[in-house]
Amino acid sequence: MVNHFRDIKALTFDVFGTVVDWRGSIINECKSWDKTRHLQVNWEEFADEWRSEYGPSMNLVRNGEIPWTKLDDLHMSSLLKLLQKYEITNLNKSEIEHFNKIWHRLNPWPDAITGLLKLKKKFTIATLSNGNVSLLTNMAKWGKLPWDCILSAELSGHYKRDPEAYIKAAELLSLERNEIMMVAAHKDDLSAANNLGMKTCFVPRPFEHGISRKIDSSPEDWIDIFASDFIDLASQLCCD
Amino acid sequence: MVNHFRDIKALTFDVFGTVVDWRGSIINECKSWDKTRHLQVNWEEFADEWRSEYGPSMNLVRNGEIPWTKLDDLHMSSLLKLLQKYEITNLNKSEIEHFNKIWHRLNPWPDAITGLLKLKKKFTIATLSNGNVSLLTNMAKWGKLPWDCILSAELSGHYKRDPEAYIKAAELLSLERNEIMMVAAHKDDLSAANNLGMKTCFVPRPFEHGISRKIDSSPEDWIDIFASDFIDLASQLCCD
Repeated sequence: MVNHFRDIKALTFDVFGTVVDWRGSIINECKSWDKTRHLQVNWEEFADEWRSEYGPSMNLVRNGEIPWTKLDDLHMSSLLKLLQKYEITNLNKSEIEHFNKIWHRLNPWPDAITGLLKLKKKFTIATLSNGNVSLLTNMAKWGKLPWDCILSAELSGHYKRDPEAYIKAAELLSLERNEIMMVAAHKDDLSAANNLGMKTCFVPRPFEHGISRKIDSSPEDWIDIFASDFIDLASQLCCD
Repeated sequence: MVNHFRDIKALTFDVFGTVVDWRGSIINECKSWDKTRHLQVNWEEFADEWRSEYGPSMNLVRNGEIPWTKLDDLHMSSLLKLLQKYEITNLNKSEIEHFNKIWHRLNPWPDAITGLLKLKKKFTIATLSNGNVSLLTNMAKWGKLPWDCILSAELSGHYKRDPEAYIKAAELLSLERNEIMMVAAHKDDLSAANNLGMKTCFVPRPFEHGISRKIDSSPEDWIDIFASDFIDLASQLCCD
């Protein structure tokens, strides 16, 4: 491990797309659930549309148009619109709540747990996600994700990429920001962390949006580590 | 399990004294560290005096005399006074910081991990301690405590038994307070939780303050479960 990384004490992870395959998990669960219902729904399109509401719904909070709102509640607003659009009308309240909590039941990418277990031996590993604390806690139980600590945008009342989310995480870890490495599959997340003095690791997830949508996985000179997956990251940080 | 407990989704745990043996751990580490130094210090007394500053130092925050201050920093203020009193004068800054972090290296009571692993199968298990997030995270790594989620008074900016600490924990777990059981070895902690509608479990730890100091371990009719240890609690909540 080069000297540059000797001071790193903790790794904070973006979760949706970086640790878990939100799209594949949602499509699989919806298709399985639909086996006995035979709804005429394109579930790939449904998952993509639900996720496409993610950014705009958080912008309402970021811009101060609505007060702090948990991601679970933003997901619910988007879901209710989608259920109407796709004419899925026969669900009761508790079924809709269970549907919305599909975001608590996302499955990790195949390398994630093995990589995290290696990294955990040497570093504190924490989430730093826009998902709310209970969502991330339930997801960790669901997917056996071995976090040392659940950190969330919710703890600062500011969604990433607002600086407050990263600043609060460092405060709670009692670390300087340059002692923390942000790990994400998304450059804007890493760029925000980099601007605040955090170290950064880019782990492209080429199939986050399915096999047909091309994503930007090119390295950047301001990114500290480029890793092909979490096992590669553990190896680059000498956690083997 | 009686119906009364059917709605419980999460257990929140007091930590110092309830999960870990702070006194025994501090005395052991200090004595071991002192083996090559031969300081004339009564480490039992030292540990008790350090802990006796805990309540008064948090009161400064509770009463608004000082702004929110992490427990690590309150511990440090008390430690500096004690080092002077006991004439332990030859420590450099990083040795004093390591000394202060003895509170991150406390050992669990013998039943704690086994009990928590059983309880974790059925419930979300979280800390709800006055220890700061990083202290609790480091302690979990040190003692292999299998928390699903690290919750702390720090997240509300209010020390227990201020109601805000319990209210914030329930909000972050996205649960009603009566879906949460507070587990503690201290009745005042349980009483505060009970007043806010949480369920309560009393686990007396007769040796928290050593073998000579008698503690109040009598049951109370407002306490929901009286458990001899965490394994007994898991059994009473049908987690076997």
